[in-house]
Amino acid sequence: LPIATRLTERLGIAHPVLLAPMGGVAGGRLAAAVSNAGGLGLIGGGYGDRSWLEAELRAAGNARIGCGFITWSLNERPELLDLVLDHKPAAIFLSFDDPARYARRVADAGALLICQVQSRRDAQAALDCGAGMLVAQGGEAGGHSGQRATMPLVPEIADLLAARAPDTLLCAAGGIADGRGLAAALVLGADGVVIGSRFWASEEALVPPGLQSAAMTASGDATLKTRSTDIVRHRYWPERFQIRVLRNAFTDRWHGREDALQQALDTEAPSFQAAMAAGDATHASPIVGEAVGLLRSVEPAAAILERIVAEAEGLLTSAARHVQPA
Amino acid sequence: LPIATRLTERLGIAHPVLLAPMGGVAGGRLAAAVSNAGGLGLIGGGYGDRSWLEAELRAAGNARIGCGFITWSLNERPELLDLVLDHKPAAIFLSFDDPARYARRVADAGALLICQVQSRRDAQAALDCGAGMLVAQGGEAGGHSGQRATMPLVPEIADLLAARAPDTLLCAAGGIADGRGLAAALVLGADGVVIGSRFWASEEALVPPGLQSAAMTASGDATLKTRSTDIVRHRYWPERFQIRVLRNAFTDRWHGREDALQQALDTEAPSFQAAMAAGDATHASPIVGEAVGLLRSVEPAAAILERIVAEAEGLLTSAARHVQPA
Repeated sequence: LPIATRLTERLGIAHPVLLAPMGGVAGGRLAAAVSNAGGLGLIGGGYGDRSWLEAELRAAGNARIGCGFITWSLNERPELLDLVLDHKPAAIFLSFDDPARYARRVADAGALLICQVQSRRDAQAALDCGAGMLVAQGGEAGGHSGQRATMPLVPEIADLLAARAPDTLLCAAGGIADGRGLAAALVLGADGVVIGSRFWASEEALVPPGLQSAAMTASGDATLKTRSTDIVRHRYWPERFQIRVLRNAFTDRWHGREDALQQALDTEAPSFQAAMAAGDATHASPIVGEAVGLLRSVEPAAAILERIVAEAEGLLTSAARHVQPA
Repeated sequence: LPIATRLTERLGIAHPVLLAPMGGVAGGRLAAAVSNAGGLGLIGGGYGDRSWLEAELRAAGNARIGCGFITWSLNERPELLDLVLDHKPAAIFLSFDDPARYARRVADAGALLICQVQSRRDAQAALDCGAGMLVAQGGEAGGHSGQRATMPLVPEIADLLAARAPDTLLCAAGGIADGRGLAAALVLGADGVVIGSRFWASEEALVPPGLQSAAMTASGDATLKTRSTDIVRHRYWPERFQIRVLRNAFTDRWHGREDALQQALDTEAPSFQAAMAAGDATHASPIVGEAVGLLRSVEPAAAILERIVAEAEGLLTSAARHVQPA
């Protein structure tokens, strides 16, 4: 039996699960696999490489997908939004800056505007510009996020929506990698979930196998939020958004020594790039969240999605077992 | 109908809800109120003030309660454990250091050993010494906590227990203030929850009303983890445990300027103490977690507990509504 929520109804999809638009990782093949399995796949527009984006939009074939952008990066190349809108995406997913200037164009193209928010304050800004869906993202997520945590952020945003915009959908993101997380998110008041790390560890993800392997044995204890991984990649993020990665020799050496890293970029940047290309997880960074502690194998995205939904279905169906006659 | 789990069965209580043993805040009256309403109240032993502890044990009257300690602080005054064990507590709750040296005495006294853990690594240490219950505490909690977040930590610890110690109970702590959080925690694999901030805002809590009032209108956005609040109180915590408080004029001035604060303690410490005594929330720190964004009123502990359980019961009973024929 499927899990039906306002999200599945509004988007016309079978399962209330969205692929996190992980920049450079969620390409057309992964997005299409998630959509074809009944969720909604989102290509990760990342830092706005036009030719990469064109190739991945093609790779998605005829699948009904969406696309995500890093909003402050899109601000530097806003024409990329038109490139994507020309492909008639189901949704545009914006995160990490004020989405206001893009809202009209997304609406006019008939796409759902999804705004990922890291605080109640962000949520208010997203509502001000008419977002059709908010994603409440906790800092346990992989990649970039803010300061709040999923467990208390989701119900706080749900309360805000109930009071101010009851028709706006809500998804939970951060720390969700299995059916327990999906079922818990629905109980907290979300209409669905956005899943990153679990799909990062899929066969279709654009991740070197060496990085995926390193993550399969890690506890969530082994991740950290850092600026070092952005500095070595010449990515200039606003300070409130730090990246969560798997701890390794690189972060052991440079986390907390960002000024020294800045001075060493001539050698560190090329060696980081080389390690990334080679899938060397001791020097390149597997970009995963705390939910890495729930991952044990790399599988096809469809198998991952089906297991998440089946597990959540079982938990939701049997939740009433906790309530018993005295 | 009550919510019945392994926790309610093992402890012989009506509701799977424990009062967080907030140091100096969870006194005998609050602990007794929670126990008398069907949960388990725990006095917060804090930094080990013997006369305070004796008075609060008396204030609990005949209620069946437990007591919590800051383990690294207890190490300096281990005789306080005997003081509490003489009162035949239902449970001893240890957090923030290796509990091994106390396990035998707690077991011999017939009390349940509850170990609060902030990581998978902590959980393994707690299992090594035979804890009967683990509390997986996320960093969104008020007061002191570690780096992990509740949403991914709870299922990771649940998996560890399933593999290594299936009879050991598990509670979730951090970010849980209402029935949504309780129901979500059970779905994530916990047997119950530990609730702090919501009971901090109870009539029985030993908190100046001015601090409680300040918290009633705050979003979870308005909390931060800091060292400043410990420094001004002369509390020397291990670096991995920072305190989460409500942001105010004091933290705006001193957070991130801890060295300067250290130099200014002669004037800052007495003025902080005076503000605390006066309930002046702009200079003293309301010690609450991100779940402060879910609080709207100060009420009797029994009313708080009843509403949490009733809301969770409704959510668990109706969770199957999400699963529908296609």
